[in-house]
Amino acid sequence: MINDDLKGLLYEREVDSPIARVVRALSGHGAVSASQIARSTGLARSTVSTILSDLKRSNLVVEVETRSPGLGRPALAHSLNPEAGTCVGALLGLDEIRITLADVAHNVLADISMPLERDYSPERATRVVRHAIENLYKEHSLPYSGLLGVGFAVSGPLAPNGRIMRASVLPTWGGIDLKSTFAPVLQKPIFADNESNCAALAEVMWGAAAGVEDFVLFKLDLGVGGAIVANGKVLSGSSGAAGEFGHMVIEPQGPLCRCGNRGCLELYCSAASVVSLAQQRLGRATSVAEVVTLASNGDVGFQRLLADAGEAAGRGLGIVGSIINPPLFIISGGLAKAGELLLAPLRASYEKHALIKRQDLDEAAYPRFVTGRFLDNDNCMGAVGLVLRHSGRLT
Amino acid sequence: MINDDLKGLLYEREVDSPIARVVRALSGHGAVSASQIARSTGLARSTVSTILSDLKRSNLVVEVETRSPGLGRPALAHSLNPEAGTCVGALLGLDEIRITLADVAHNVLADISMPLERDYSPERATRVVRHAIENLYKEHSLPYSGLLGVGFAVSGPLAPNGRIMRASVLPTWGGIDLKSTFAPVLQKPIFADNESNCAALAEVMWGAAAGVEDFVLFKLDLGVGGAIVANGKVLSGSSGAAGEFGHMVIEPQGPLCRCGNRGCLELYCSAASVVSLAQQRLGRATSVAEVVTLASNGDVGFQRLLADAGEAAGRGLGIVGSIINPPLFIISGGLAKAGELLLAPLRASYEKHALIKRQDLDEAAYPRFVTGRFLDNDNCMGAVGLVLRHSGRLT
Repeated sequence: MINDDLKGLLYEREVDSPIARVVRALSGHGAVSASQIARSTGLARSTVSTILSDLKRSNLVVEVETRSPGLGRPALAHSLNPEAGTCVGALLGLDEIRITLADVAHNVLADISMPLERDYSPERATRVVRHAIENLYKEHSLPYSGLLGVGFAVSGPLAPNGRIMRASVLPTWGGIDLKSTFAPVLQKPIFADNESNCAALAEVMWGAAAGVEDFVLFKLDLGVGGAIVANGKVLSGSSGAAGEFGHMVIEPQGPLCRCGNRGCLELYCSAASVVSLAQQRLGRATSVAEVVTLASNGDVGFQRLLADAGEAAGRGLGIVGSIINPPLFIISGGLAKAGELLLAPLRASYEKHALIKRQDLDEAAYPRFVTGRFLDNDNCMGAVGLVLRHSGRLT
Repeated sequence: MINDDLKGLLYEREVDSPIARVVRALSGHGAVSASQIARSTGLARSTVSTILSDLKRSNLVVEVETRSPGLGRPALAHSLNPEAGTCVGALLGLDEIRITLADVAHNVLADISMPLERDYSPERATRVVRHAIENLYKEHSLPYSGLLGVGFAVSGPLAPNGRIMRASVLPTWGGIDLKSTFAPVLQKPIFADNESNCAALAEVMWGAAAGVEDFVLFKLDLGVGGAIVANGKVLSGSSGAAGEFGHMVIEPQGPLCRCGNRGCLELYCSAASVVSLAQQRLGRATSVAEVVTLASNGDVGFQRLLADAGEAAGRGLGIVGSIINPPLFIISGGLAKAGELLLAPLRASYEKHALIKRQDLDEAAYPRFVTGRFLDNDNCMGAVGLVLRHSGRLT
């Protein structure tokens, strides 16, 4: 029953009552204090208290203790009842579908990855997603009726109308309408965004960008992408293709890219490019993890490989810096696990190629470079975040 | 007297009364209808009408007729009384200071340029600006007391604290605080922004971006710069250096740029680079205008020069497109006067280098390329706009 109340308050758009605003603030922010809710909703503190009491009586909200780093008493916070509902984030990746299951109190309950052949079809994806969700709900003895919505992180630009662009890294998915593909099978509200925008949302909600209004997320994964957050909003672009850092052409006569251009940045610093060169050297299949281990153990060739990727990434980031001039870069994606082997050359290359140099600024004004909190699972966590924040709903 | 009223309503920040909101809407938008004022201020139509009547009685507002393209009666609009006040925009350029004088009804009264030696000092600039303004006010028999504020367009990044960055094209001005330089001499409120951000404001207020919330201005002048407008706001960046398109490094081993980097975009497509190559060919001094004339008359070499500049600019814009993905590019600056000799290769090169191709989109979704309205004077007009819109005030 409480689940039905929650659905109404979260997703019936005409409801803009104070109680719906409080419930949405809780859904979007997890465990928060009454004053934080008052600030984010603009409601009076007394109104918020009354609403919270009502919501606790109807069991939709529970009290939780949060402990801040210092001494002193734990602070009292409020959270949606974890039993009130669940949501699913799904990554439609190049060669995998990944599913993260979470409850409305922001607890991750499960996270699974299903490897797929490349160029899997939308029909296959709907079967895989539906089957995986059903199994997860059985395993965790959760009712499917408690599923509030499914968020999709898509490996490529997503047009504002919910269609995947041709330029996507999922070439066989060009022009596919996500909602009409998944909604009939899942029978739930569908949310979606580009995977890097999802990753940025995950870092805002739970990670390195908590409380930050302006930053650039730069994602070194199989491909290279990113997201621009300005004044607290993800810049999506007129075709959903903003932040496609991997497809800046840096060598117009360079090798052909899967996108159809030549010399795109990602050819020089993606995990795929690093692994491909490493395989040539080893004469066998390898992985980012092994390349990093070999480099850490002193192999000069693999150190060079990671340093060159960092150098190229820093050159690209220098261009991004001269265009966006953000105060914070979050370096994310699987290749960021290489740590300083990659990041030290990246920062040096940024300083070399950016317009504004360290000496031009007070130390505090120089852009910060941090590693993302979720190097592996930011896409899926962000897709969960879409549902919790009611962002990117396809209608 | 009416001038004093206007100053109070425009610039006393604590005043957020309905009357001040109406006056600011008029100052920011020029001649507008009562309904437009109601929309932009959020005030009730009846409140706006009452306020307008009061303002007309005190002679601060006048009625004007505006004629739309069709037949029919001229529409009635309201404007600040042009005699209520004036403002000045000043461009601190590489080798000139330009001054535009306008009244609060958005009429341009004068526009003069004073050539200066490069690397002129701040002291010299204050004398030149003060002297020029005094002369203009004498010539036009205007009282200096009617000057509401002076807006400065600066050829380089301007930090949020009002200091010019070292990386500026005005190298001797690095670290200069604009307000403490000009306010003691001019004794007026000082406003300032980067020249390209000023240009974008001019296009929003009176030009190619009227009514547009998202666009990129790309400025091919002596140097190359630009501005990014997203969700109706100019993206300024944490050090005021967003939109520095001319300093994207496109050839890391290319020639040294005045900014200290190598192979910056502006080395390949600025007016300065075109004129410099043309001078080598002619063996004497020349200008953009002459290069364009010679190319238009069939000179293959000068056609190639402009086409190469367009090709390089399009490559840079392709990168900007993959990062920002705007629906509109406004091509501005003196070199844009070359017209299709430059713009046709520019568009072709954009299509070649951008991630999203024409075939990926409905015709209406492909980015539009238009030439700016103010190729010559957008900086100064935008600096006037800063004062009229109360934007970028240095305090």
